[in-house]
This record gives sequence, structure tokens and C-alpha cells, in this order.
Amino acid sequence: MFRMKVYRYLISILLIMLSISLLANPEGDKAPDPADTRVVQSLFREALVSGEAYKLLDHLCNKIGHRLSGSEGAEKAVQWTKKVMEDYGFDNVFLQEVMVPHWERGGKEVVQVMSAGKTMDLSVLAIGGSEPTPAQGLSAEVLEVQYLDDLDELGEAGVKGKIVFFNRKFDHSNFGGGGGYGGAVDQRVRGASRAAKYGAIGVVIRSVTSAFDDHPHTGTLVYNDSLPRIPAAALGFQSADRLTEVLKEEPKAKLYMHISSKWHPDALSHNVVGELKGSEFPDEIILVGGHLDSWDVGQGAHDDGSGCMQSIAVLHTFQKLGIKPKRTIRAVMFMNEENGVRGGQKYADLAGENKENHILAIESDAGGFSPRGFGVSAPDAVLDKFRSWLPHFDRNTILFFSRGGGGVDIGPLHRDHGVPMVGLSTDTQRLFDYHHAPNDVFEAVNRRELELGTGAMAALIYLVDKYGM
Amino acid sequence: MFRMKVYRYLISILLIMLSISLLANPEGDKAPDPADTRVVQSLFREALVSGEAYKLLDHLCNKIGHRLSGSEGAEKAVQWTKKVMEDYGFDNVFLQEVMVPHWERGGKEVVQVMSAGKTMDLSVLAIGGSEPTPAQGLSAEVLEVQYLDDLDELGEAGVKGKIVFFNRKFDHSNFGGGGGYGGAVDQRVRGASRAAKYGAIGVVIRSVTSAFDDHPHTGTLVYNDSLPRIPAAALGFQSADRLTEVLKEEPKAKLYMHISSKWHPDALSHNVVGELKGSEFPDEIILVGGHLDSWDVGQGAHDDGSGCMQSIAVLHTFQKLGIKPKRTIRAVMFMNEENGVRGGQKYADLAGENKENHILAIESDAGGFSPRGFGVSAPDAVLDKFRSWLPHFDRNTILFFSRGGGGVDIGPLHRDHGVPMVGLSTDTQRLFDYHHAPNDVFEAVNRRELELGTGAMAALIYLVDKYGM
Repeated sequence: MFRMKVYRYLISILLIMLSISLLANPEGDKAPDPADTRVVQSLFREALVSGEAYKLLDHLCNKIGHRLSGSEGAEKAVQWTKKVMEDYGFDNVFLQEVMVPHWERGGKEVVQVMSAGKTMDLSVLAIGGSEPTPAQGLSAEVLEVQYLDDLDELGEAGVKGKIVFFNRKFDHSNFGGGGGYGGAVDQRVRGASRAAKYGAIGVVIRSVTSAFDDHPHTGTLVYNDSLPRIPAAALGFQSADRLTEVLKEEPKAKLYMHISSKWHPDALSHNVVGELKGSEFPDEIILVGGHLDSWDVGQGAHDDGSGCMQSIAVLHTFQKLGIKPKRTIRAVMFMNEENGVRGGQKYADLAGENKENHILAIESDAGGFSPRGFGVSAPDAVLDKFRSWLPHFDRNTILFFSRGGGGVDIGPLHRDHGVPMVGLSTDTQRLFDYHHAPNDVFEAVNRRELELGTGAMAALIYLVDKYGM
Repeated sequence: MFRMKVYRYLISILLIMLSISLLANPEGDKAPDPADTRVVQSLFREALVSGEAYKLLDHLCNKIGHRLSGSEGAEKAVQWTKKVMEDYGFDNVFLQEVMVPHWERGGKEVVQVMSAGKTMDLSVLAIGGSEPTPAQGLSAEVLEVQYLDDLDELGEAGVKGKIVFFNRKFDHSNFGGGGGYGGAVDQRVRGASRAAKYGAIGVVIRSVTSAFDDHPHTGTLVYNDSLPRIPAAALGFQSADRLTEVLKEEPKAKLYMHISSKWHPDALSHNVVGELKGSEFPDEIILVGGHLDSWDVGQGAHDDGSGCMQSIAVLHTFQKLGIKPKRTIRAVMFMNEENGVRGGQKYADLAGENKENHILAIESDAGGFSPRGFGVSAPDAVLDKFRSWLPHFDRNTILFFSRGGGGVDIGPLHRDHGVPMVGLSTDTQRLFDYHHAPNDVFEAVNRRELELGTGAMAALIYLVDKYGM
């Protein structure tokens, strides 16, 4: 009987210890394998030391330059990235045809404010997709507003025949850059049609930027098909300040704007795909990518030359370290993220037609800045598994896996086929100083920051390849 | 008897549940107070929106410039920061006298390599504290080595009469910038005396830098008193490449170097202190600081104008949000971190003499980059308490409290008086591109990154002020 009690006690204690250990560590308390930590860290080291993505980015930016869908630059970038991956000896390199929108800016835009008999030039870029002004330009009084909804109150009586000036600033009180951008970008995307609804003849906006300089920032707009398509342009931050100053003195000051943009028929372009074939499960695909197109100013260095060059470098890093993946690792340069997402949709459609099995898609499209973590759109069990890998990462590299995230180009794959998707989260404080602007050039990218992103994606792919999803 | 058993069981279950909860959460599972989260986040928002530290840094860099101990710039910076804190209406602003080393670079240094009858100028700065060359300069054959220990093997036979060229590169395989710096900086600090030991007449080094450009990076050297003090200079990365190329072709190529630096007697300078007096525990001091001196090139923007301006802005942010601290919050601009740490030592000595009770000292001297965490040199209980505050911080701000860290200037306070110390850990990937070099200027600092550092320190101080240590 006494022995019986002792057994019972021992069993309870065992059960207790088990539940304590489970509660204390919901992952089941599996210590991270030091061998994995060594590989993870060697992937980062190789990226930092070789600077492969940085060298590629130098070529893409300085030898090819910007590359809007349908442009000569985009075509050059397609052919060159294909050749780069072939020269690296990837197992399989191919193009996917995709028809893309083709818009051209035309000559340099002009926006001038006429005040006190003097004409002042403002720093400006047409918003991507804008209709041109008449050949002689157009001029009208300016209506300055902060919010799209302000127009609903003013109505046709206040808006008709005018050029609407959306002047709302990027809100710096957000902790990442994204919140400030998201809070102001409606002016660029939907401002023109909202103004056209009440009879405006043109739109200018304060550029959506975290900087206080005078670089204008372009980006896409969306016209409402049932309304007149009026021309729209973005002013540099300082130019917007100058315009608002003039309007305080002279509320009836006139603005002149001239845009000579042109819409062409859709053009043939391509996604570029390169892969390392898996040795054990070649049909399980892990995708890493970015978008190859950029806006038609600057060099598209952060947006998104960085993500593309990192993706190629991830596969090359595996090659250099002699890591033979069990699953197929695929680098994808998507075409047309900026004004259509046609490449991302086409890729997802083909994946469906070909019954491809993507177990994970990762995108880097938050600039070539230091990584901080990954955003994960996947079931909780996946997020838990990823989090159990955090101990492999040095604190200068990856510090979190957060819920939600991914990328515009891999969005269709996630939405249409349920593929788990992950976005590289970077330190985005500087992103919106450069985003869609003439200063998004190679020199704005730091080599070490860029390469830590390469290492981070290589590391996550290594672990997913080894352990599956 | 049965009831007795039931009680025993119930008690065991209670004990088990208690231990489970303690094991699962060593902090005791206190949920973070949402009111604290709101204050923490409002401190960040205020810093981001007002850009106070950034405005101050603009003045310090562009109106005052660099400020080596004993220089006119240092004196101006002392007087100006004192006035800034007075103008903000801090409760108490004062100077602490401190005698500092006074070294001057003199005219622009020259280092030339003579090869194939031609003379090539190299990009160079004397290492801080270097003795001058003779007025006519000196020239000699060059001995290129990688490690200080290489000289021990070569001995006097290989070294005597030569100029030693330490050519070891910054190791990029480290995840933070600090490791690469730490692994190469012995060439700058101890290279001259090690070379002098074997009869060298001068030293040049490859600058300790993460960049691949041609900015030379200065910094301090330490002469061994028992050995001749020979002149020493740092070459830009590309200049070091050029020199090593020449030496491959012409091992006997001669180097000419000319430095006209001068040591003056110690000069009177000051630490600058400003404080907000505590309402409940005025004798408990929380210190936040950086060093006001910089090297004598560029503008000392990251190193460490940033830390100083953030520290003043922390106190001003409390003022603007109407937060009345219970404890005394003190901003300290330390003098002479770069070549003596006299200000840090003097501050600690005075704290001892005046029996001041510092409960915590925080230093920002890792550049005005995005914060990632805090390094903490304090008992485990303090580290645990700080970690329990992590839920207050957005993931774009502070992600960890790590063991170890602090700052050079608050080191004496920690060492001599046991004051817990904390260093702001930043994203240091770009730090050693600018460190001690002519390109460490205002434009190299990003406003949002700098201000997140202000917010981070304000937030930690707010929590320490509220809950004590």
C-alpha cells in the first residue's frame, strides 16, 4: 500500500513535470540544433563577404537603369537576369510570357504657379498612368484640400474647372514607414477620379514621401472608368510647401501644367525564373522573388532591384556553399508589380495550370535595408515552427516572425492556391525617402544591409528545405 | 482520513499550478499596463513628429562642425548645448570643468608612393595623437604586413628603418559592424609602437572601415612610453589597395609621408549637464548622455552628435508631453570620449565626491541609426524587469534587452560606483562607413532613424522613473 502511494506520487510528479515543460515551451522544448545554427550563420557570412547581390545590383542600376513595364529597360533586365542565372549554372532558367500595360511619360513635365505676375517652376512628375494634358497644357485656379472627402462637401460648385491640389502630408507618427505611406497614398491613387467626379480638370498632389526634400515621387493611379480621365502630377515636398504659401497670399493664383504622357497597347514582357532542382522532393517548390520592373525614374534600386538581386544571390549562395537542396528552390523576377501585377497573376495562373506544388513563397520588396524579421501569412503551426527557429539567428539579423505579410507579386499565388507566403520585413525608416523617386539609385543602398537580407532569406529557405512545412 | 488526502491533493495541485505559472513566465505573468504602452508610444510619436534631435543636430553639425577636445569647435559646442538646455527651461544646467588632452592635426597630411619614377598621392589622415614627421617629411621603403604579430617574426632585421604598412581589412563576416571594427582596430591603436619596437620610422594603416571608398578614417593611437613615438597615418580603402598593388610590382617602392601635427598642453574644457528635477525622489538620478567631442574631420554627426542631441531631446520630450518625472532625469554631454575619456572619469569622480545616487546611466554612442534594442550591464533582476517591458514597444522600435553593454563615457560610473548601465543598440551596418571620417556629416543621418533612438531612450527612462530599479 505504501509502495502503491509512492508509485502514484511518482506518476503524478512525472505528469506534472511533463505539463510544466509543455506549458513553459509550447514548441515541445526541442533545443535548436547547433548544426543548423552553423549553416544559418554561414549563409549570412557568405552573403556579407561575397557581396554578390550588391555586385548584381550595381550592374542592374548602373548598366540598365530604370525599367517600367513595356520599356526598353525592362526588356534588357529580363534578358540580363536570365543570362546571369544561366551563367551561374542554375538547373533550369526560363521566361514566362506576360502581356503588360505600356505607359510612357513622354517629355519632362512642367507645373508652374503664376503669382504676382511671376512664374515659379515646381518640381514635378506625372503620376504613373496619367493622361496627358492638351498639347498646349492647361491652366486654372487651384483648389487646395487635404482629404478626398473634402471634395464631397465642396461639390461641383467648388471644384468645377479647377486644378485640385491634394496637400496632405505623410504622417510621421507611425513607427514604421508603411503607416505614413498608407495614410497618404489615396491622394495619388484615387485623387484624380474623385476630383473629376466634381468637374476638376487636373490634379496635383504633395508627393507621398517621408523626406523633406524636393524629389517628386511617382507611383500608380487608378481611374474610375465612369468618370473623365484628368491628368495628375506629384509635386516635391518643398514645391508643395511653396505652392501652399503662394495660395495663402493669392488664393486665386493660377497653376499651369503640361504632361505629354502616352498609353500604348499592351506589350509582351516576361517573368524570369531560375531554379535549383531538389534532390529528394523536386516537385516541392520554395519560391523567393522580387519584381524586376520599376518606375521610370531613378534606378529602381531599393524598389525592387534589391529584392530581385537578393533572390538570385540566395540560390547562388547555396551553390557556393555546396548546399544541395532537397526541394526545388526557385528565384522569380516578377514583371509589372508597379502598375498591374500582371506578372504575379500570370505566375499563379501557370502554377495552377501546371499543377505545381509551391510549399512556400517569399518576397523581398521592402527595400534593400537591414532585415528585422519576416511577416508570415500561413497557418499558426507554420508560424510556430518558424518561431522555433529564431535561436539560429543573430540579433543583428532576424528578430521576429510576425503574423501577416507577404508581397504583392506572390499575393495571387497565396490567394488563388493557398500557398503560404512570407515577406522580408526590413528597417523601412528610409524607404519612403526614395520610393518611386529619382533618388532611388544604387548609392542609396548599403552593401551590408542588402546582403543581410540575402542571408536572411537563404537561411529561412535552408530550414524550410531541410524540415519541410 | 479521506478528507485529509483530498486536502493534500488539492494543496499539491495548487503548488503545481503555481510552479507551472512561475516556470512558464518568470516575470510572474504581470500583464503590461496598457496605460504605459500608450505613454511609451506617445514618446516615440512626439520624437518622430517634432524631429527635435534632428533640428539640434543640424545646428551642431552645420553651424559648429567637428569638435575635438581642446578645439574651438568643442568650446563652442559646450556653450551652445548649455544655452539650448537653458532655453528649454531645464531645472538646472551646469558645466563640470575637466582638463583634456589637446592635439592638433596641423596642415593637410601628405602620403605619396613613388613608383616607376612617378609620384602618386594617397588619401590619408594622421591617426589622432600621432607625432609629426620631421618638417621635410620622411621617406623609406615599405614593409607590408597583416598582423601586429608578423613584426615579431620579422624582427629588427626586417623592420628597421622602414615604414610599416598594416594592411588588414575589416572582416565583413561579422553580423554587426562592431566585430569587423574590433578585429582590425589594433592596427590603428597599437601598430605604431609595435613597429617602433623593431626600429620602424613610420606607420601607415588601411583605414578601419566597412566601406570600399577612399575616405580615410582617423581615431586614437596609444604610444608605449618606453618606445620611440613614430608618426602614423590611415589610408583610404582604395588608397591602401593602390599601395599594395604598387608594392606587388615594385617591392622596394618608397613611401613619403608628411604630418605636421602638434601636442599642446592639456586644455580646460567641460562636461555639460542639464536636468529635470524629480518631484518625489529628486536624489535618484537617471542619466542619459553621449559625448560632445568628436574627431577633427567631418562633423561628428553619428559619432556622437546624435547621442548628445537625442539626450537633450529626451528631456525636452518629457517637457512637451507634460510628464513630470518622479526622479531626476539628467542629460550629460561628456567631453573627451575620443582620446582620453577624461570627461567620463571626471563625471564619475564628482558623482562620488558629491555622493550622488545614480540609479541608471544610459548612453547613445552607436550612431544615429534605427534602434534595435538595449544592451544592459546590470543584475539579472534588472534585465528581467526590462524584458517584461518589451510588450510596450512596437516591433519597429525596441526588440531586445541583451546582457552586457553600456558606453565608454558612463563606464567609469559603472566601474567605480556600480551604477547599472545601458547602451542603445542601433542598426550599426552603416556605422563604420562614416566612423571618424570626413563623411560623418549631417546628411548621413536619417531623421526618422535618429528620432526612434530619442523615443527609445525616453521610453526606457519613463518606465524606470515610474517603477524604479
